[in-house]
Formats: sequence, C-alpha cells, structure tokens
Amino acid sequence: MRTAVTRLLGIQHPVLLAPMGGVSGGQLARAVSNAGGLGLIGAGYGDADWLAQEMTHCRDCRFGVGFITWALDAKPALLEQVLAQSPAAIMFSFGDCAAYIPRVHEAGALAICQVQTLSDARRAAETGADLIVAQGTEGGGHGAIRSTFSLVPAVVDAVAPVPVVAAGGVADGRGLAAALMLGASGVLVGTRLYASDEALGLPAAKQAIVHHGGDQTLRTRVFDIVRGYDWGHYTGRVIDNGFTRDWHTREAALAESVDSERRRYQEAVARGDAETAVLFAGEAIDLIDEIEPAAEIVNRIVTQADAALEWKPG
Amino acid sequence: MRTAVTRLLGIQHPVLLAPMGGVSGGQLARAVSNAGGLGLIGAGYGDADWLAQEMTHCRDCRFGVGFITWALDAKPALLEQVLAQSPAAIMFSFGDCAAYIPRVHEAGALAICQVQTLSDARRAAETGADLIVAQGTEGGGHGAIRSTFSLVPAVVDAVAPVPVVAAGGVADGRGLAAALMLGASGVLVGTRLYASDEALGLPAAKQAIVHHGGDQTLRTRVFDIVRGYDWGHYTGRVIDNGFTRDWHTREAALAESVDSERRRYQEAVARGDAETAVLFAGEAIDLIDEIEPAAEIVNRIVTQADAALEWKPG
Repeated sequence: MRTAVTRLLGIQHPVLLAPMGGVSGGQLARAVSNAGGLGLIGAGYGDADWLAQEMTHCRDCRFGVGFITWALDAKPALLEQVLAQSPAAIMFSFGDCAAYIPRVHEAGALAICQVQTLSDARRAAETGADLIVAQGTEGGGHGAIRSTFSLVPAVVDAVAPVPVVAAGGVADGRGLAAALMLGASGVLVGTRLYASDEALGLPAAKQAIVHHGGDQTLRTRVFDIVRGYDWGHYTGRVIDNGFTRDWHTREAALAESVDSERRRYQEAVARGDAETAVLFAGEAIDLIDEIEPAAEIVNRIVTQADAALEWKPG
Repeated sequence: MRTAVTRLLGIQHPVLLAPMGGVSGGQLARAVSNAGGLGLIGAGYGDADWLAQEMTHCRDCRFGVGFITWALDAKPALLEQVLAQSPAAIMFSFGDCAAYIPRVHEAGALAICQVQTLSDARRAAETGADLIVAQGTEGGGHGAIRSTFSLVPAVVDAVAPVPVVAAGGVADGRGLAAALMLGASGVLVGTRLYASDEALGLPAAKQAIVHHGGDQTLRTRVFDIVRGYDWGHYTGRVIDNGFTRDWHTREAALAESVDSERRRYQEAVARGDAETAVLFAGEAIDLIDEIEPAAEIVNRIVTQADAALEWKPG
C-alpha cells in the first residue's frame, strides 16, 4: 500500500509504531519494520543505557526513535546518541521541537512532529517537520483533547503538502482506511501493538487491554502526580482501575499525600498489580481481543484496509 | 450513494440532519430531505405549538423528529402529536428509549436511537432500535466522552446486523467516506448544517461557527446550569466565549449565583450577544467557512465522499 508516507520513509506499508515509553523497545520496533512498517523506539523519560541496549536490536533494519520533547530538553545529549546510530527518523511529541529539527536534518534523518491541536500543527509545519502526526484524544497514554476524526482533516488542510499521519483510535484496518479517507497518508498505532508478543511493559497491562473495553478508559493526571512527572496540560488515557477510582477528581488530596502514595504505588508496580499500576490504553481496545505477534497485527491492518477500500456504495 | 441506511429510510443519500434543538426546524429538515437525505426536526425540550408549526413545512416530504428522551419522559403526549403527522422516523437521544419503541413501530415509523457508549449501543439494539447513531464527543451540543473514530467500529461489531450511523465530527465528504470505512452506513450531520441558510438559531451563532476553529471548542456544563437544565452526565460542546471563560471550572460558584446570572444570561441572549449566549458547535468547525443553502452542503458532502472512495493507494 503506497502513500506519501511510504514514499517519504522508504517503507512498504503506511503503518508506524507509536514510540510508547517502556513499551516500544527495540524488538517491537524491529518486528514492525520487518513487517513493512516503521518501528519507533520510545525514548520515554530518557535513559541512555536503556536506549543504547534497545537500539542494538535495530542494527539491520530501518527504525526511528520517539522522544518526549520536554524530557529531551532536560537531556539533549540523548539526541546525539541516537543520531549516531543512523535512524531513519526522529519523532518529537509534547513540546516545541523547532530547535532540534535542523540537527536531525543535518544527520540525514527525517523529523516527525506529533501534535494535538491545529495550532501546534501549523507551528510544526512552519518549523520544517517532514511528517506531522495528528494525535486524537482517543489514543492511549499522553495526549490532549481534540479527536482524531475532526483533527486529521483540519491538519491535512493546514499543513499541505506536508504529509499527515493519524494517531489515536486506530486498531484495525477499518481505522487505516478511514484515516486515508480523512486525508492522512498513514497511521501511527499504539495500543494495538502494546498487545503484542514483542512489546515490553507489564503482562497484566497487556491482559487488561484484551479484557477491557473503550467505555472503561479515561484521561487522568493521577498517575503523573504519583510518579512525580509534570506533563503540563497533557493527560494520560488509561484503563479505569482501583487507583483511578481512589484518586481521579481528587487530585489535590493525592498531591498532599504523595509521599506515602508513591511508595505504595511503586511497590504495587513491582508486584505487577493491575489495580494500582498505570494501564495506558486507548479507546479502541474494544477492537483488541488477543495478544499476537506484531507482524500479524501489521499485516492484518493492511489487508483489512485494502479490502475496505475496495468497497463501493451501491 | 446506496447503503443499508438509504434502503432502510427510503432516501437517496446516507446523510441525516441532526435534530438540533432550536436549530433544526421544519424548513431545514425539508431542505435536507429534498436534497436526498433525511431531515429530522429537533423537538428540544418540547414545545407542542412550536412542533406543530414546524411540522407544517414537512407535509410533502419524508421527515423525522428527534427527541431528547429525558425531556420527552416529562411530556410523553408529544410523541402522539408527532406520530399523527406520519413521520418516517423518530429519533431518541439521552435516556432510555426502550418504552417508546413499540409505539413508534405500531404507528409505522422507524426508531432511531442515538448512543454515546458501547454499553448503551448494546441496550438500544436489544430493545429493538431500527438504526443506531453512534455519537462521538467531537460533536456539537450535548454528548458524552467517547470519540467517533473508535466508537463507531466497536458499535458496528456489537449491534450487527442493525445499521449504524456515525455522528460527531462529520462536516464534509471526507467524514462521510471515513465513516463508511469504519463500518457505518451513513452520517448524522449537525454543526455543518447549523451553518446553513435554513437553520434557526442566533445569526451570531452561525457566524461564530464560520469564524472559529476546533481548537476553540470545549465540553462544559455552564450553560445548562445557567439555563436550569439537568443533563446528568451529558455535557455540551460549545465555542469558548466570555461566559465559558468566566464560569467553566467554576461551576459551583455559578450555581450559587444562578439567579442573577440567569437574568443577565437571558438578557444577553435576547440581544444576540455571542460573548454570553451558548454557541453550540462541534470540533469540525475548522472545515466550515461559509453559511450556505442546506442542499448545497448535502450535495457537496456526497460528491466529495464519492470522489474520496475512488482513491486507491499505489
């Protein structure tokens, strides 16, 4: 399936792995790239040793690395470390990436900017992004409030001819076909690939994705408060669990007792307790029934989209 | 453009007018039906004289009426008044419509149920809905939190073979084409048809739709508080204005001073003050640049969707 995105990135299918922190390691990125998409390792909050180790899995395939821009701002040396491994692309999310783009281009890589508003999309295009990811609020993990269905065509109109990838809510081939109809040239897939054999992360989190539905997700700040991260206006979409039922809408009380709650939280994560640990997941988990090899997921998305695009009203 | 929805409703194009209270009157419903879609008059909070008057515009075309279910519960005689005019369909939103469906069928009309969650979709299918509208949070006016892009395919899978219509975020033919790819058999269009010549509502509200973007909308309860309506867990998507900047996130303070604020609010509405009156609008207003005849809007949506569906990757 050829689009502006496959041509730009030199890949076979317009399917990108979302660089999920702590989930999208080198093995998942490699599996997605080998299946014809583009695997993006998630640099998360930025651990140089972890990144070095994960990039070793991608020595013989095209890959990219996705940064949390505000986290990279505190550890800018990570960009040089990654560029030294000749990635195909660097993706930036959650912050202003303008200052990094010239260096990415100088190193021969492409700059992908993920945005959550039309205003940020315009800024990304002006500052030289090669590809813009329009991320809707239905996506798992961190994001903002605009929705995929109306954000994507608005961004496409605003940033043309820069190609646009849709993120948030894409878990099967219907989503890829719909994204293409909205004017996107590809999709960025997170939660669906979290529920894969190669993804890192708690086994209980993968099971939660399979066994819950989209009515059970919500956007919240409580896990950022207890973990001590300042995400500004971005919230995280998670599956409702005991921790959200205790603290969501009681954020001020959580902040007051954060020392004892953090200890309790870390202990719960260590023992894999899904009623306390954060379970990042998008609304599209209704469409996810099984943990599978990443290559099967990518292939099915493309095959199903091809079939959907053959449909004609009449 | 034929789909399960055009066959079920006996119409030419799978485009339904959202029954927007105070906006979707008989003239707008008639214009949409005459253009090949299905016009639905918005019964809103339920005024028998207004409804009688508006239905006179639809004597010679197929039409429907959409009720706010919880408002109809307080004035059930309105259903008989409407059924006496031989509507093609009755639409129910925001409440449990199970008790009304047998009477609708007995009168020879179709029952359309609009839902905002997968759980409510299952309930609507079980209770005999002929058509289910899956409404995403991006839509203007009242709604809930799930998004169109991931809600639609989940509802399609859950209620098959009952046909599904996508609502929320659809303002052009790309939206119709994308909805069809997600498995829907048509779309329900609100805000795009609010910005039409035939729509009722404040002229300032139509202008606001044309001149604002989706980054400027939000979901809020403040207009329900000041107007004295109890919408339960449903919120309204509006364009940010002076009133939301004063009161959104300060709902408790608004409730305390509601008597004086209500007077001030009603006076502002009477003089058409767009900085105070509620400006219902969906996120897709980025795609709306002009107030036009409804028939032109419907025809362009269909023509553009047909063209989009001709596209093939490669």
